Amino acid sequence: MTSTIGIDVGGTKIAGGVVAEDGTILQSMRRESPATDPQAIKDTIADLVTALATGHDVSGVGVAAAGFIDRDRSTVLFAPNLAWRDEPLRAELESRLHLPVIIENDANAAAWGEFTFGAAADAKDLLLITIGTGVGGGLVLEGELMRGGFGIGAEIGHLRMVPNGRLCGCGNHGCLEPYASGTALVKGARAEAAAGSLLAKELLDRAGGDLEAIDGPMITTAAQDGDGFAIAQLAEVGQWIGLGVASLAAVLDPTVVVIGGGVSEAGELLLDPIRAAFRGELTGRGHRPELEIRQATLGNTAGLLGAADLVRADTRR
Amino acid sequence: MTSTIGIDVGGTKIAGGVVAEDGTILQSMRRESPATDPQAIKDTIADLVTALATGHDVSGVGVAAAGFIDRDRSTVLFAPNLAWRDEPLRAELESRLHLPVIIENDANAAAWGEFTFGAAADAKDLLLITIGTGVGGGLVLEGELMRGGFGIGAEIGHLRMVPNGRLCGCGNHGCLEPYASGTALVKGARAEAAAGSLLAKELLDRAGGDLEAIDGPMITTAAQDGDGFAIAQLAEVGQWIGLGVASLAAVLDPTVVVIGGGVSEAGELLLDPIRAAFRGELTGRGHRPELEIRQATLGNTAGLLGAADLVRADTRR
Amino acid sequence: MTSTIGIDVGGTKIAGGVVAEDGTILQSMRRESPATDPQAIKDTIADLVTALATGHDVSGVGVAAAGFIDRDRSTVLFAPNLAWRDEPLRAELESRLHLPVIIENDANAAAWGEFTFGAAADAKDLLLITIGTGVGGGLVLEGELMRGGFGIGAEIGHLRMVPNGRLCGCGNHGCLEPYASGTALVKGARAEAAAGSLLAKELLDRAGGDLEAIDGPMITTAAQDGDGFAIAQLAEVGQWIGLGVASLAAVLDPTVVVIGGGVSEAGELLLDPIRAAFRGELTGRGHRPELEIRQATLGNTAGLLGAADLVRADTRR
Amino acid sequence: MTSTIGIDVGGTKIAGGVVAEDGTILQSMRRESPATDPQAIKDTIADLVTALATGHDVSGVGVAAAGFIDRDRSTVLFAPNLAWRDEPLRAELESRLHLPVIIENDANAAAWGEFTFGAAADAKDLLLITIGTGVGGGLVLEGELMRGGFGIGAEIGHLRMVPNGRLCGCGNHGCLEPYASGTALVKGARAEAAAGSLLAKELLDRAGGDLEAIDGPMITTAAQDGDGFAIAQLAEVGQWIGLGVASLAAVLDPTVVVIGGGVSEAGELLLDPIRAAFRGELTGRGHRPELEIRQATLGNTAGLLGAADLVRADTRR
Repeated sequence: MTSTIGIDVGGTKIAGGVVAEDGTILQSMRRESPATDPQAIKDTIADLVTALATGHDVSGVGVAAAGFIDRDRSTVLFAPNLAWRDEPLRAELESRLHLPVIIENDANAAAWGEFTFGAAADAKDLLLITIGTGVGGGLVLEGELMRGGFGIGAEIGHLRMVPNGRLCGCGNHGCLEPYASGTALVKGARAEAAAGSLLAKELLDRAGGDLEAIDGPMITTAAQDGDGFAIAQLAEVGQWIGLGVASLAAVLDPTVVVIGGGVSEAGELLLDPIRAAFRGELTGRGHRPELEIRQATLGNTAGLLGAADLVRADTRR
Repeated sequence: MTSTIGIDVGGTKIAGGVVAEDGTILQSMRRESPATDPQAIKDTIADLVTALATGHDVSGVGVAAAGFIDRDRSTVLFAPNLAWRDEPLRAELESRLHLPVIIENDANAAAWGEFTFGAAADAKDLLLITIGTGVGGGLVLEGELMRGGFGIGAEIGHLRMVPNGRLCGCGNHGCLEPYASGTALVKGARAEAAAGSLLAKELLDRAGGDLEAIDGPMITTAAQDGDGFAIAQLAEVGQWIGLGVASLAAVLDPTVVVIGGGVSEAGELLLDPIRAAFRGELTGRGHRPELEIRQATLGNTAGLLGAADLVRADTRR
Repeated sequence: MTSTIGIDVGGTKIAGGVVAEDGTILQSMRRESPATDPQAIKDTIADLVTALATGHDVSGVGVAAAGFIDRDRSTVLFAPNLAWRDEPLRAELESRLHLPVIIENDANAAAWGEFTFGAAADAKDLLLITIGTGVGGGLVLEGELMRGGFGIGAEIGHLRMVPNGRLCGCGNHGCLEPYASGTALVKGARAEAAAGSLLAKELLDRAGGDLEAIDGPMITTAAQDGDGFAIAQLAEVGQWIGLGVASLAAVLDPTVVVIGGGVSEAGELLLDPIRAAFRGELTGRGHRPELEIRQATLGNTAGLLGAADLVRADTRR
Repeated sequence: MTSTIGIDVGGTKIAGGVVAEDGTILQSMRRESPATDPQAIKDTIADLVTALATGHDVSGVGVAAAGFIDRDRSTVLFAPNLAWRDEPLRAELESRLHLPVIIENDANAAAWGEFTFGAAADAKDLLLITIGTGVGGGLVLEGELMRGGFGIGAEIGHLRMVPNGRLCGCGNHGCLEPYASGTALVKGARAEAAAGSLLAKELLDRAGGDLEAIDGPMITTAAQDGDGFAIAQLAEVGQWIGLGVASLAAVLDPTVVVIGGGVSEAGELLLDPIRAAFRGELTGRGHRPELEIRQATLGNTAGLLGAADLVRADTRR
């Protein structure tokens, strides 16, 4: 039985792994990402694949990258952090590597990873919400990855929550992202601390009095240590996510929702408020089967694992 | 080549048709709906099928009904207007009719109808939004009808638009339905007229001074006759729908949105404001391919046609 | 030194008292309110005054009534619960009683009562918010009762909180009242209980399983007994009031806010959440002197006491 | 009959005038504002007063300044643009000038100016809303300037309009200012132009293609020339102001609202939408006397005139 290689191209690092059919990572490697040089990234990917392939029977390469990918999984249309514009990545990699290649959006790949090998491996559908710098996600319905009619779906962070609400990086107002991202979490905590609030004093002390030192992991640690303010800040993020899940559940009706991304490492401190808000806002609550909200289990290997499995599935068709 | 029969079970009428593979309705019939008597409805459906089948080569029966249907398309779990609770409709009809039967939610069936034979027949996906007494819809993604993990998806009217917003019939606050349904349209117009507003005078005159006589078709006719207030009321409904489409587009990324239901008969008076609001609120507008917003073309035969095609597809598997 | 008489005309009862200059109630009486018969109410008021005046040196009569009063404090323009329309109450009572009379809106009179003898007796201004069936209030600024340019100010319950929000009894959407009145408190609790929520089980048990038996005092008692759901319902009301106070403080900048009305009997269970929400939302918090939020102290004698003092002040001019 | 001197201390200029009792400006002068040097501003004020006083019989000096002023009208507690912190301005100016001096917040002074000599000279109360860089205002009720219990009232721009709304400069979310200020007007227009919207093309052309060249006066001029986009942008600002006026009218019940500040120079293009939104949102509309919404008439002399009259009134007491 052959393995496939999964590659996750990030803004700072490129991670790769040889993945068995059951999701076992047989070998993994990591390189710095020459993010501003489109050609250098391709060279790095090719080198990484070559290095990983040595000694393994490899039947294909799946590449996960942050950006808009065309519906054929061949071209990176636009990758904000990677300097790629209309990059025919698949063709070039296939001609250099002599292996089948597919390109997939990283959040989609992560959704497929969690669906195939991770937190939703027992389920037939999945709504993945990742809470990191931004809010992203992926969607698996009826056992299929939903990539959108134009290949740009599952932008969960841009579900509209508040008419005339907070400004989002996308230029609109009231998207989920400016309420529920890690960035929003940190911004809210810093603002309270900057206002001299007694509530935030313990957190500010923890940061040595330096506002800029307050970050997401620090808030999570403080919350785990019992700091009421940090707990409340995580709960506020959770409430917005829970409200978003309730809203989407009416339309998508998934059986499993998985919460991933850096902020999800707060575990129950985040998931409990998500579940509470979801239950309080779900249309038809008490009269319908209720979806499960789970923490992601694959961490930052989800994208790599998903990409590796997607190329396997693709080559079978 | 055989035909199939589509049945649309409504609260007041049961409509049936013999449908050719290309969507032609070869023959159609209609009966009063004995809605409060579960057994009588089944009898009426069986009679209607028998009458329609005479003289046609019929290979199956698709039944569209308003309500929650189980994922096997066999049992009506709950039908608010039809007195059915956990009704094993498929089994009973199959044993009486000696034909394959499937049951489908009416909005899902209508979405499949518009997708297969109607406004989205050229598309590979579809978000249908029906604006009638309530706001409903259906979802076809990647060429498949999305029924939801529990069979209760595509409840577009319960997408949450306004935190702490208007009370919805579902018990929650701020769903799309209380802003954008035909009921909301009429309620808003009557309220303005009741307040003695000069704006609503022309409409109230048209209603002979009787508030209760103001209804959806009257508002549409008044708008078509150029009444500014009626035009504005339709535009307000359109703005909410457009905002909802923009929000959903971020998640579902469909290429075609079809607007159906009674209020959609207002045509461009409704669709123009939907498109304007959608364009003004779409995340990434100007930097992404833009979906098309179209009027439904099948009217109230969409459900019947969709159900007839779904049973054909089902019997082929 | 003479006394004055204060009369509080309610929909079910008419209360009267002989009030000394220092706010002592020397004698008090109460009659049923013949609310649907305008003439009978006037007769009852006149009888009550005559009975109270016996044995006291009385120099004037102040009448507090729920309704719009003209700026001269002479005519009841409109009293929703009392069948009065453009009633020249002052002239008729003065001619029957041979005493100076003033008429005042009941919430305004209550604000003046709390300002003169009650919770804000030490302050130079006051924003009174009463939380009962509706949300009302009164305003004393720079030591003067603010009645509004048309005599219909201080309708605190109709401050707009949520664009496109919940329907208010006034016909608008998003006023404070549908979020923070006693009616809203009860409605929210009943809705949760009706949905079969486990959260509301203890409260529903307390009501003997009868939804309609859940009322405001029951919620308050349950909260005082430690029922988390009842505590949370009161806290939600408090959050909205606190947000309203923060919003109004930017405009009115009062030094004291007094919370009255039936729901205020919940005491700290209501006031704590009001204070927390206020502090979290006040513009310039930490950089400005902070107003005090206090519970009303006069209960349902506030209107009577205020009216009695207003006529004293009026006769001095 | 003596005159008084009014001084308006701005961030870039200091304007002064000798004002007769009837509001005639007998002489006026203007100096650059040495805004970052607290002592130099005081010297400039003193020089300006001395120069203006020559040849006039002057009985007092009123100084209007942007900032928090104590309730005694003596000390500037905090002036964001003027480098004053706890500045005992009244005492120093009185000892140098040998004239009675009062200090007043500039928006309060402007409200008093419009109330005494300007757009509300015939009224007994006034709500002034100024739409400039920010949104400010002043409040005259029952014929008295309402300064707030802590001297920091009438911050109309920080009335809360949208829960979880746009970030305001004050650190809160959803204040009126980020929706209805001149800054918001320009920001909205630039954002639409930056997104390449065809709607904004005419305006961008007018700006020579330079986004940064789009400013408030350009939008107003474009609107006056019939540019539909510019008209719509002004109308959006007007809608928010109108909604704010409706909300405040429930509490303050003024008979006259005056709209001032730079954006108000758009005249009916701004006032019409304000009136339309106000009428559509006023609680009790149709059943109550309706306040008038007027354009300010004193332009940038309102503060100077108000301050001059306030010192006259003060010295009379």
